[in-house]
Amino acid sequence: MIEEIEGGITTPQGFKAAGVHSGVKYRALDFGMVFSEVPASAFVGYTSNAVKSAPVQVMMKENSPKLSAVIINSGNANALTGRRGIEDVMAMKHTAAAELEVDPAEVGIMSTGLIGRFLDMHKIRYGISRAARELGVGKEADGLFAEAIMTTDTIKKEFSVRVRLEDGTLVYISAASKGSGMISPCMKVLQGTTLTVVTTDASLSPGFKSKWQEILDDSMNMVSVDGDQSTNDTAILMANGKAGGSFADEDPEFIAALKAVMLKTAKTIAMDGEGATKLIEVQVTGAETKEDARKAVHKIMNSPLVKSAIFGSDPNYGRIMMALGNSGCKFNLEDVHLTIKGGDMEVPILDSGAPVFQEERAVEVVRMAMDNKEVVIAVDLGLGKESATGWGCDLTYDYVRINAEYAS
Amino acid sequence: MIEEIEGGITTPQGFKAAGVHSGVKYRALDFGMVFSEVPASAFVGYTSNAVKSAPVQVMMKENSPKLSAVIINSGNANALTGRRGIEDVMAMKHTAAAELEVDPAEVGIMSTGLIGRFLDMHKIRYGISRAARELGVGKEADGLFAEAIMTTDTIKKEFSVRVRLEDGTLVYISAASKGSGMISPCMKVLQGTTLTVVTTDASLSPGFKSKWQEILDDSMNMVSVDGDQSTNDTAILMANGKAGGSFADEDPEFIAALKAVMLKTAKTIAMDGEGATKLIEVQVTGAETKEDARKAVHKIMNSPLVKSAIFGSDPNYGRIMMALGNSGCKFNLEDVHLTIKGGDMEVPILDSGAPVFQEERAVEVVRMAMDNKEVVIAVDLGLGKESATGWGCDLTYDYVRINAEYAS
Repeated sequence: MIEEIEGGITTPQGFKAAGVHSGVKYRALDFGMVFSEVPASAFVGYTSNAVKSAPVQVMMKENSPKLSAVIINSGNANALTGRRGIEDVMAMKHTAAAELEVDPAEVGIMSTGLIGRFLDMHKIRYGISRAARELGVGKEADGLFAEAIMTTDTIKKEFSVRVRLEDGTLVYISAASKGSGMISPCMKVLQGTTLTVVTTDASLSPGFKSKWQEILDDSMNMVSVDGDQSTNDTAILMANGKAGGSFADEDPEFIAALKAVMLKTAKTIAMDGEGATKLIEVQVTGAETKEDARKAVHKIMNSPLVKSAIFGSDPNYGRIMMALGNSGCKFNLEDVHLTIKGGDMEVPILDSGAPVFQEERAVEVVRMAMDNKEVVIAVDLGLGKESATGWGCDLTYDYVRINAEYAS
Repeated sequence: MIEEIEGGITTPQGFKAAGVHSGVKYRALDFGMVFSEVPASAFVGYTSNAVKSAPVQVMMKENSPKLSAVIINSGNANALTGRRGIEDVMAMKHTAAAELEVDPAEVGIMSTGLIGRFLDMHKIRYGISRAARELGVGKEADGLFAEAIMTTDTIKKEFSVRVRLEDGTLVYISAASKGSGMISPCMKVLQGTTLTVVTTDASLSPGFKSKWQEILDDSMNMVSVDGDQSTNDTAILMANGKAGGSFADEDPEFIAALKAVMLKTAKTIAMDGEGATKLIEVQVTGAETKEDARKAVHKIMNSPLVKSAIFGSDPNYGRIMMALGNSGCKFNLEDVHLTIKGGDMEVPILDSGAPVFQEERAVEVVRMAMDNKEVVIAVDLGLGKESATGWGCDLTYDYVRINAEYAS
């Protein structure tokens, strides 16, 4: 049984964390550190953007199977910084390794913030040393860490679950994540970076990598605020095995619990998307292939016309079909069913490819369903057995304001 | 020599046009007709959206090599209308053919407007018969036609050129087009439909089809207001040969003139995009393949983060690189040059993949370049010899308003 609990990144045994102010940001916390008493098996997902930040480049190259610590700075993404950016990452690793007395290869790094600027290494070194000194366990440490990695996030993203494995071991899984945002209206940050650290005291074998990919594909990789993938996206799972017990790789309870944490994180990021007023869930079922289902979800979720229609509760469902038609997903129009759900309403729109109703009054019902904080677009292609679900948000005036404003 | 002239859809010899009010829209003109005295060689480009409107389905199936007339209704897209939609298209063709005394297969049809509603055939029949009676030549007829196909367009899109072919023949080419828009804030139209009719009195052989594709690929297919492709997009070129002379298929002057008309049309549609305040031109050079260059242009042009940054003249050039990195286009970051042009300013941003400057004051220069009605983003990948150019517009509060507002 999976129990959702109050907790944070240090809830699983053997993890410590800190969040401090290094000075990269003017005032807010801007440097976070997670430390595991014993080297943890590490599973990492990186952005697939061809323009990768310096920390992503270094992490991908080293590909360490074990990590003892992850350090995260916010306020500067260390992207588009060339050779100097890489050197700065190496310096960060070595400084942290010396402070924590671990191997530099076992220090993971993430950055988020303004791109195209060099790090102020004086501040970063201070942040590393201060965070190392302030490592702690419990609610305060968790909160400081979760806060230090935030940019314009309006919701702190921490989730914890407890689950009993088949072999009787009780394990904890916690995630801390940041969604999309800017540091400040004058700092010019590349939007949409998501950084996630997941800690667990379960044991995982190196083979869990493919499962981690699968879980990311169904959670974080199905979130979209604006369809723009960052240069810095990184999601690290650290499993230090402190709970004891055997490998949890195949344990259905463990996998379900990890999925639950990641789904919750993904949905919260979508809901906290820039300027968002509504969470949009897109469900595509009956696809011939999983890839087709994902393509359709992404195209519908990223359509500015669909997103702005939902912002305005404008029952313009033709736009959903237009987006589906552009997705490259295989379907026959005459088999497609479209339903819009919101609140406790469930409104069939298309039945076998044809509009269910033509009357103006009926259209008003669609508008009412859309006029909810969570709107579900359910498309059944009626072709195969594959499905996918994704989460996005509406396109609002505030999205434009946040991303257009230049505070000189 | 290509001369731009005052003119419209009936400027080339042997074409007549009309624009009338059929009643589908409450007040505005909503039905247009172009007629050629002799059947014209027809070259048609259709939407590649898998959800195609009824007129597109019928046109694609019949694929008539000659067209005597094109009829266009605005106010109702006749899309998502199933079998009845198809029957309505056939009825429109037969009615128009009877009025004009031509073969039904030689009547081309386009629709734009609200989707998911059946046409009011009583009104449409009236429109056909009235337009057939009112066919005329000259400025008034041209203007009525161009107006009848508009939805929320704010600029009437008519262009004419005169060009002397190598064999001495003087030919005319004219285009009338509609850009993206809604009919009215309460009518819920699927956005982004572009309909274009090009008339010329030059002679073209059936083989010109591939050249038409090529020209569309470099003009209309490189325009994007929101990345959402309509179910109804259609571009028809009618060449009736009334100017005499030999086939102009290979005539470089003719091709250059046709390209010029189509480029002008494309740019005007981008500039008149919903809510747009700025035209954005994206130039990608030095790509390994043409397809790569196009992919990069489209990804940059459609990025909501790039578009909203340009709306606010926010010099956040990292977003351009982020979009490039997501495009799937091949490049090495260390070879990339990025320049932003606006007004008479030309500001180098990235030189061999690294930011040219780091200072706050220099960033202000980028902002000044962006603060123009036309902003050019020039990316040289430094890899190969292929290039592509595209046109889009900024993402503004008005875009959100136009597409979110539900006038009940």
